Amino acid sequence: MKAVQVGILGFGTVGSGVVKLIRENGALLERRLGAPIMIRRIADIDVTRARNVDVDPAVLTTDAMAVIEDPAIDIVVELIGGRDAALRFCREVLARKKHLVTANKALLSTHGLELYQTAARQRVSIGFEASVCGGIPLLRAVKEGLVGDRVRSIIGILNGTCNYILTKMTESQRPFAEVLSEAQAKGYAEANPSLDIDGIDTAHKLQILATLAFGAYVPLDRIHVEGIRRIDASDIEYARDLGYRIKLLAIAKQLNGELEARVHPALIPEDHLLASVGGVYNAVYVVGDAVGSLMFYGRGAGQMPTASAVVSDIVEIARGLLHDAPVRATPPPQLSEQEAEIRDITVVRSCYYLRIMAIDKPGVLSKVAGILGNNNISIVSVIQKGRQEQSAVPIVMMTHEAIEGDMQRSLKAIDHLDVVSQETICLRVEGVTG
Amino acid sequence: MKAVQVGILGFGTVGSGVVKLIRENGALLERRLGAPIMIRRIADIDVTRARNVDVDPAVLTTDAMAVIEDPAIDIVVELIGGRDAALRFCREVLARKKHLVTANKALLSTHGLELYQTAARQRVSIGFEASVCGGIPLLRAVKEGLVGDRVRSIIGILNGTCNYILTKMTESQRPFAEVLSEAQAKGYAEANPSLDIDGIDTAHKLQILATLAFGAYVPLDRIHVEGIRRIDASDIEYARDLGYRIKLLAIAKQLNGELEARVHPALIPEDHLLASVGGVYNAVYVVGDAVGSLMFYGRGAGQMPTASAVVSDIVEIARGLLHDAPVRATPPPQLSEQEAEIRDITVVRSCYYLRIMAIDKPGVLSKVAGILGNNNISIVSVIQKGRQEQSAVPIVMMTHEAIEGDMQRSLKAIDHLDVVSQETICLRVEGVTG
Repeated sequence: MKAVQVGILGFGTVGSGVVKLIRENGALLERRLGAPIMIRRIADIDVTRARNVDVDPAVLTTDAMAVIEDPAIDIVVELIGGRDAALRFCREVLARKKHLVTANKALLSTHGLELYQTAARQRVSIGFEASVCGGIPLLRAVKEGLVGDRVRSIIGILNGTCNYILTKMTESQRPFAEVLSEAQAKGYAEANPSLDIDGIDTAHKLQILATLAFGAYVPLDRIHVEGIRRIDASDIEYARDLGYRIKLLAIAKQLNGELEARVHPALIPEDHLLASVGGVYNAVYVVGDAVGSLMFYGRGAGQMPTASAVVSDIVEIARGLLHDAPVRATPPPQLSEQEAEIRDITVVRSCYYLRIMAIDKPGVLSKVAGILGNNNISIVSVIQKGRQEQSAVPIVMMTHEAIEGDMQRSLKAIDHLDVVSQETICLRVEGVTG
Repeated sequence: MKAVQVGILGFGTVGSGVVKLIRENGALLERRLGAPIMIRRIADIDVTRARNVDVDPAVLTTDAMAVIEDPAIDIVVELIGGRDAALRFCREVLARKKHLVTANKALLSTHGLELYQTAARQRVSIGFEASVCGGIPLLRAVKEGLVGDRVRSIIGILNGTCNYILTKMTESQRPFAEVLSEAQAKGYAEANPSLDIDGIDTAHKLQILATLAFGAYVPLDRIHVEGIRRIDASDIEYARDLGYRIKLLAIAKQLNGELEARVHPALIPEDHLLASVGGVYNAVYVVGDAVGSLMFYGRGAGQMPTASAVVSDIVEIARGLLHDAPVRATPPPQLSEQEAEIRDITVVRSCYYLRIMAIDKPGVLSKVAGILGNNNISIVSVIQKGRQEQSAVPIVMMTHEAIEGDMQRSLKAIDHLDVVSQETICLRVEGVTG
């Protein structure tokens, strides 16, 4: 049977992982697919650097267009990352009616709709399993496994770097900055960590996942995003005392035809399965109207897990190619161009954790409680640890469910009190059932 | 676009769930599939009983063959359960070159190979997502998501009844018999609970899952099976003191070309994600050579979760039908007729937990330790709780890794000691990494 010819753009970590996997498991793949997969050409700016996999130098080129334009190539895999060049090349791939596989979440979260629509028009597929949660076969599960379900909610740990940092802070009670440095030294965090720790990468993945799960386009800039920079070792400690863990969560919920879409650190009950997801692992908790609660767990990044997802997309497209079957990995037919109705963050309801740093003197609690009460927020519990007259001590509060707008107004007023010495930490509580 | 015509055999809990789901999410399904799904005929012995869903009486029949032979029907869904009648009807469906969807794990675990081979010969699909772990899209993930991976191991909690019983015993420190009665009263366990609590149902599911994941036929009678009847509240308590939970596990591991396939209760470290899977939930921990560790979690049974899986198979087959695409949900092309090389249980290696009930008198521990030592088994720890001279007290031991055959010989010798008052409880330890 004829071989499936693949071209790769970007011969970095993931690119060489894909080559390695197709080589090592080649016989198995051929048996499963019914045809061999051939890597015909690989383009990279640097074609001389040593990789952990040998390739015939004739396969390598510095010219991406030589790969895209090779008439023998059926599937082009874009693994160069970033937005500008990647977008240009992806457009060229689709313009030539070739199938595209990409792991590029930054690109899809901003230009996904254009690419999905172009692919549909050109009757080719876009496989993007690797763009969300690396090796976890999550998008496939949502698209095909839950095809009969209306997805109600998604709560995910989508960024391994943040989960590593928060897990280490929890286990060792060390401060954020120290654990971040350690993560950078270990290669788990970038030199410029903003994309991860400010929640931006998580928002990119939520954009792709929510658009797929809810079948309407979620504009990236409508996702409310907060990162984990301000989480203190003490917050993790207080949360633990209260029976919670702190995780950076990506949340999308369907409520009365509107969609909540937000990324922020949150307290999650310690007996929730997501609370047990530690280290660099990712996990996504999905609720469907028929299937109920599901969770998917695995490595969200790394060379071989990501390669595994890329290869699964190549095989899926190859199956169609070999049998002249229709496009499958593409944008789901249910994706409408219509934008999802995103619920404004100010009307979202949540329970809250507050850490207010206030001068320890009589009457402070009454002032704070007064502000909350005036904004319709009831307090569940208050912990005030340590006494240090005339200096700032933490007041930790848990509230009943309240409206975000009311909380924002309260925080402004609380932080204006002259007894409050620094900006109040306010975290939402998620994953509480019943 | 032409509708996809479905016939259903068996209008019980799952059958009426499928009808309900296709009705309630019909518009969504039509949008996702590109064509409506019509339930053309439903066969059941009882066509008069009220269900939680209304159907036109003309759709109902007591004659299964009327459904199978209806020339308009493309896909037949077998939900009658059991082996004999189901097998007969499934053969008739395939003989007529119709696609088959079934949730029947008892049938597939014994007659799967015949049905898979017939389907391949007839060029039709068999969808069986619902047969293992109900609503969790697990088979699809293994077959398509891990298509580039060599699966190394599978450890699963595949039976909700057993997990409910063990979870309740753990939470409330109550005895097995009492919790089983409660589970029966709540409808979580059958009046005759043997299929569940003796591990038979779990073995059925492991047979299907392992055959798919490892690509070679695993004969049901080669799976070593032990149930949970002998687990005592005290075992759960001791395990907890040692940092473990007790779960009924289905295990399949590839080791040097051989496959371990076994079902038994086991101790699993409390920080392993499977240890946090409580109640009636199922979960499967899969390790692939590229993707690393994955876990899938969800409801393994129940009307709507099972219906969700059945509908996902119907849609997958319908997609192929609508586009004249080739068979996809069928037996994977990689499934060979060749039987897997199953490693005999006597050569399996494991660490063990032992609870020996022995008369409390000097020299007992030395006798037991001597027997273990003579059989190449080293002890990690011993706990002897309570002192009651001349009456039986538990001696709880954890061992280093040992060979099952050595352990079996030791147990025989230990239970022959005149100071040992009842059969020793011996449980394997699983999920220990590193």
